[in-house]
Amino acid sequence: MTLRHGTLEIGCPVPRVDAAAKVTGEEKYAIDHTPENMLWAGVRRAGVPHGRLRTVHVEEARALPGVLCVLTASDVPGTNRQGIVHKDQPVLAVDRVRHCGDPVALVLAEDRETLAKALALVVPDIEPLPSVHSPEEALRPDAPAIHDSGNVLLRAVIEKGDAGGAFGECDAVVEETFEVPFQEHAFLETQNGIAHREADGKLVMTVSTQAPFRDRFEIAHALGLDPFSIRIISPYLGGGFGGKDGATVQCLLALAAMHAGGRPVRMTWEREESFIAGYKRHAVKMHYRVGAKRDGTLHALECDLYYDTGAYAHLGAEVMELGMEHAGGPYRIPNVRVKGWCVYTNNPIAGAMRGFGVCQTAFAVESVMDMLAAKLNLDPLEFRRKNALRRGDENCAGVTMVHSTGIGACLETLSRHPFWLERRDWKRAAPPFKRRGVGLAAVFNAMGYGRGLPDSAIARLELTLDGRIRIYCGVSDMGQGNSAAFVQIAGEILCQDASRLELILPDTDRTHPSGSSSAGRTTYTFGNALVQACNALKEKLFHRAALVLMLDEEKGLALLPGRVRHLPSGREASFELLARMLPEADRASVGQFIMPVAHDVPDTGKEFAIGFPHVFFAYAAHLARVEVDELTGRIEVTEYLAVTDGGKVINPQGFEQQVHGSVAQGLGYALTEQLLLDRGAILNAGFADYILPTALDVPEIISVAAETFEHTGPFGMKGIGEVGTNGPLPAVANAVNDALGRRLTRSPLTASRILRAMEEGPAQPVT
Amino acid sequence: MTLRHGTLEIGCPVPRVDAAAKVTGEEKYAIDHTPENMLWAGVRRAGVPHGRLRTVHVEEARALPGVLCVLTASDVPGTNRQGIVHKDQPVLAVDRVRHCGDPVALVLAEDRETLAKALALVVPDIEPLPSVHSPEEALRPDAPAIHDSGNVLLRAVIEKGDAGGAFGECDAVVEETFEVPFQEHAFLETQNGIAHREADGKLVMTVSTQAPFRDRFEIAHALGLDPFSIRIISPYLGGGFGGKDGATVQCLLALAAMHAGGRPVRMTWEREESFIAGYKRHAVKMHYRVGAKRDGTLHALECDLYYDTGAYAHLGAEVMELGMEHAGGPYRIPNVRVKGWCVYTNNPIAGAMRGFGVCQTAFAVESVMDMLAAKLNLDPLEFRRKNALRRGDENCAGVTMVHSTGIGACLETLSRHPFWLERRDWKRAAPPFKRRGVGLAAVFNAMGYGRGLPDSAIARLELTLDGRIRIYCGVSDMGQGNSAAFVQIAGEILCQDASRLELILPDTDRTHPSGSSSAGRTTYTFGNALVQACNALKEKLFHRAALVLMLDEEKGLALLPGRVRHLPSGREASFELLARMLPEADRASVGQFIMPVAHDVPDTGKEFAIGFPHVFFAYAAHLARVEVDELTGRIEVTEYLAVTDGGKVINPQGFEQQVHGSVAQGLGYALTEQLLLDRGAILNAGFADYILPTALDVPEIISVAAETFEHTGPFGMKGIGEVGTNGPLPAVANAVNDALGRRLTRSPLTASRILRAMEEGPAQPVT
Repeated sequence: MTLRHGTLEIGCPVPRVDAAAKVTGEEKYAIDHTPENMLWAGVRRAGVPHGRLRTVHVEEARALPGVLCVLTASDVPGTNRQGIVHKDQPVLAVDRVRHCGDPVALVLAEDRETLAKALALVVPDIEPLPSVHSPEEALRPDAPAIHDSGNVLLRAVIEKGDAGGAFGECDAVVEETFEVPFQEHAFLETQNGIAHREADGKLVMTVSTQAPFRDRFEIAHALGLDPFSIRIISPYLGGGFGGKDGATVQCLLALAAMHAGGRPVRMTWEREESFIAGYKRHAVKMHYRVGAKRDGTLHALECDLYYDTGAYAHLGAEVMELGMEHAGGPYRIPNVRVKGWCVYTNNPIAGAMRGFGVCQTAFAVESVMDMLAAKLNLDPLEFRRKNALRRGDENCAGVTMVHSTGIGACLETLSRHPFWLERRDWKRAAPPFKRRGVGLAAVFNAMGYGRGLPDSAIARLELTLDGRIRIYCGVSDMGQGNSAAFVQIAGEILCQDASRLELILPDTDRTHPSGSSSAGRTTYTFGNALVQACNALKEKLFHRAALVLMLDEEKGLALLPGRVRHLPSGREASFELLARMLPEADRASVGQFIMPVAHDVPDTGKEFAIGFPHVFFAYAAHLARVEVDELTGRIEVTEYLAVTDGGKVINPQGFEQQVHGSVAQGLGYALTEQLLLDRGAILNAGFADYILPTALDVPEIISVAAETFEHTGPFGMKGIGEVGTNGPLPAVANAVNDALGRRLTRSPLTASRILRAMEEGPAQPVT
Repeated sequence: MTLRHGTLEIGCPVPRVDAAAKVTGEEKYAIDHTPENMLWAGVRRAGVPHGRLRTVHVEEARALPGVLCVLTASDVPGTNRQGIVHKDQPVLAVDRVRHCGDPVALVLAEDRETLAKALALVVPDIEPLPSVHSPEEALRPDAPAIHDSGNVLLRAVIEKGDAGGAFGECDAVVEETFEVPFQEHAFLETQNGIAHREADGKLVMTVSTQAPFRDRFEIAHALGLDPFSIRIISPYLGGGFGGKDGATVQCLLALAAMHAGGRPVRMTWEREESFIAGYKRHAVKMHYRVGAKRDGTLHALECDLYYDTGAYAHLGAEVMELGMEHAGGPYRIPNVRVKGWCVYTNNPIAGAMRGFGVCQTAFAVESVMDMLAAKLNLDPLEFRRKNALRRGDENCAGVTMVHSTGIGACLETLSRHPFWLERRDWKRAAPPFKRRGVGLAAVFNAMGYGRGLPDSAIARLELTLDGRIRIYCGVSDMGQGNSAAFVQIAGEILCQDASRLELILPDTDRTHPSGSSSAGRTTYTFGNALVQACNALKEKLFHRAALVLMLDEEKGLALLPGRVRHLPSGREASFELLARMLPEADRASVGQFIMPVAHDVPDTGKEFAIGFPHVFFAYAAHLARVEVDELTGRIEVTEYLAVTDGGKVINPQGFEQQVHGSVAQGLGYALTEQLLLDRGAILNAGFADYILPTALDVPEIISVAAETFEHTGPFGMKGIGEVGTNGPLPAVANAVNDALGRRLTRSPLTASRILRAMEEGPAQPVT
């Protein structure tokens, strides 16, 4: 509503263009599409964690009136394999099931009720096999092999300097083991989509997906189709967080559409199915050893990381890779050795999730930083400032920091905040039976795909005959607000208000390939392409306006809302006029951009196929104030401060929303969220017992931007979609330690663990 | 001290490079220079506001032991005229005195005590003339003429649309007269300097000045010297605020040095002399009439402005010009007629002061905006948002806004602040005998000199043999922190920490002409030149490093602290090595920049010689919470919120300091500061009765940046030195009206005026 008052300007907290349509319910997510004559597709899942699939009894289901067909692996025409990098996951299980959620048959029915009945009538005949449910078990020599290649998806090392030898030169060393569980994405809109096949064989799908362009190739590969015969349309997502990066319903839905005789088919995973079959944040066990000199200079780091990737790869190797790249925190440590094992188990599939492997190591490294500071009797903030990466330093992965490196700026800003300055008074004012603590975390998160996988986007603009500008956007918006940022960028450069701009959401037939909405790269990469497209269109409009206005040169021309004005004379050419004068093919502009990569590829991490190393990072310094109830063990995070370096901020409101969302998700991860598993089966596959923080549980989160300037970014910005999730767990754990003198090394930090910690001696960390 | 931890990055709140030296007292201001064998120079002033100077009796003073010489107008070798644009002010009065501070004789003595005695012995013989002390008096046909040209320095009109006719189309019209007094700059370091003449005739001066390069020409013109025989050195200033822009001690001190036989001479104006002879903020009387449509759309504005410029021009015409250019506020008003009279009187000389003519009109226009909103029964914030300038609009001076236009962003940001959202609850919670009010002001201030006076700067960098980078800075730092910003800009682009950077403060023999430190242009203009110089030096270093490192191409080179690194190979060339390889003349780079100007010069304001119109503006939305004591009339500003659009912020700490300083100065202007004059004589020429707000009087000022992006600025920044002073008076006046239902139209808003307002009826504005 406020938009009518102002042009779109970079830096202005203009309300998101999608806000009104979303709050009124007008906006249509994939799940809101219910075409007439629609069929329902669904999947029967294995229900056992590991076994030989002898056969699937489908006869009874097929016979049910209203059932169109029941398909099994033999009906899959292509490779029957999906996976973003490692294609190890069958669309429908062939002769083996590797986790409870493995799909064994696909049913196509006239309606939802019939579908449910039919699915219940499908009976897989599975011979159980011994299953493994932790990396330790899976790595035993006698462990059953989950895949033919064995149970290790990736074993890798990052090494620089001489970590082993360097510990001898340290004045203080701390060592600890940390453990974090699986986390659920818990988006509001579960995995779903609709699809139909057109008369000419074209497959048209509207899916809740983070990567519409890649989806075409996933489906084509799995089902033996021509990728260009597939059209993917991606409306706004009701959340994604990484869980909709890669195939969820896509291949199954496409297979169903191929058997629907041209009728539209819907597949929607219910919440329980979303829990069972969806991707998770990896459970990880981490052993850390870190040493410093007497003056607080970090000197050596060693850690061993065990990522439980579940039954299939998804992006497991890449997730661990990023965790390893960030394992040393945003610090300058000359001697580093990080070993990682990414291991298959018969647990649910782990994959991409906001914070992408880094959330886990951030807990460990930021806990040991506090332990080390305490051992050296140093202030934890000063200790971090002293070791914080500066431009020109080498990070723990051996890459020289030549781009904006704002962890110093974040810590400096945090150090001036009353929550830090007044921490002692605040703690002293704890009410009876409460203990108060203040904890810090310094975190970072890479932006983009990294080397070996070009991080590219292509933006297209079109001047319409009615004088508006249409932005063809190739990257999905899963709620993070990138679409609104794109409108703001175009508005800024072209000097147009929202009423003159139109955004076309991703559609493989209309927009251009621009990669996935992920990796903190969406606004950066597509934004850069868009800046180029805007400048190209501006140039074109100026050139044509000069002709129309009979000007000898273009000097003095300016873009104004809906028109080009020659400022010295005051003469104007309307966009409508210019559009009519331009041939249709010339009423457009295209900009393309590939993210720069590191020029110094370290002599380490050779096991990484793609995506290592990174050169761009967002940074954050977080502070949590907690109050622990001595009687119940309950932790209340009373206030939370997040200082974030995302370069120049495009929209302060959008920035704050990203920070609030990621911190809330991180607090869930810190305090309550965990998948409870019993031999691979999820015990809490619903929101009644998988505990998400509600609005009432989330404290006041104060977001402060430490705005560095990233020279390569659009207007100097960097992506901050991920970094905020990495701080809450370590910040809260450090605050709890500050309150109780007890360090929890296993998350989430539940009341029962707190009570146990208070009962035990202070010397022993609580696991 | 924190600098050791971090590189200098744009956006990081790094402590100012000058902070430590200033707080420890190590830094030497002009006033701290006391060379051996130093003489003292001083001036005898007229003491009467207007008169014919028959003669000056200097014999007794000359005879005093320790007196070197006593000089009068006949000893001035040049034109004996100074003035930045209009050279109407004598260095020493010839046959006329026009205000009490006019200098009639210059004394040079061995020490300060002798100087004081000698000055007392100088007796000017003045025949009093009738004097005038307000524009009204001065404009009367029978008023005595202060200058041969009459009493009008400038009469000018800005007109667009048809203001006269447009009022007939308005649904609501308000009309009011406002009055503001003279304000003192009140810098800590009074006007001063030292000078000596070298054997070759060169005049070397260290002066507290905002415009060292211009000073040479001022002195040369007045004293008949070659400007290039004068060297001006400008250390950090202990405040300036416009009062050290243009000659203060310069010509007098140079004249003294010419008679000192090569010995150094000091001239320091004591506080009282600083009051009497220094420049002031103009007293102004303003008549406003403004009209709007029923829906709140502003439609017509007429105003008549009378600026009292005192005895001489200084920048009086230009000050009024800027006031007129801003007279309509940051709003879209189609029909405007602004008339201005800048009038000589026998009052102290008015000239440049932070807010430069705009402070005054901001009071009037923001008061009438509230009056009009009230008349239309509209919310004052919504009314402002509705009419706020957007890019693409024409401002009241007829210029199309094509650069960053952040008043919308400021108002949007303010609208979300608790001070605004919770205003009603806050007001209701007023303690007994107190009334609370919340007031707004939307203000703006042009950046740069405007058309006709190139706003230029030249930056030079040098790579020293010890591998450091020296920044030759041509613009003074009067305390606003531009020097620190320059170090930060160079640190960012060249990736160096403060220890590797050295700043050379302005010195006409070492640095390059870069204009004055004024007009919100200092960091913008010099910063842009510096960005160019940094990029040129970077290119040079890369080129040489490629040779040294035997590289086929420059790709993969990066600047790191003290060295260039080839990232792919890890090989490095130190700055020391590169410096030794470069011939001396090639170890430098130069960047130069001229600020862009408006392409659309409106067909109005033809009376303005230079400096009209402007295209760049900083914007701010201010909110004051006031508590008025019903018994004493005292206003307490309890909290203050300033939302400022200065484009991208280079250093958040520096930004906040500028906002705090300007708001504090604006609050002094609002509440207590005013020169009390009795026929041109200042009654309160000292800080005992000219009441400045102390640290205890200034409320908590919350500064929020609304960071738009100015494409032409260094890193997207704009200057904010001035805009903050324009808000407090109208914001507080509007808050008082909100509290009491009484509008004060005359400032400062003293307790006695408040009491009178409460006694009188609500209908009548209080003057």
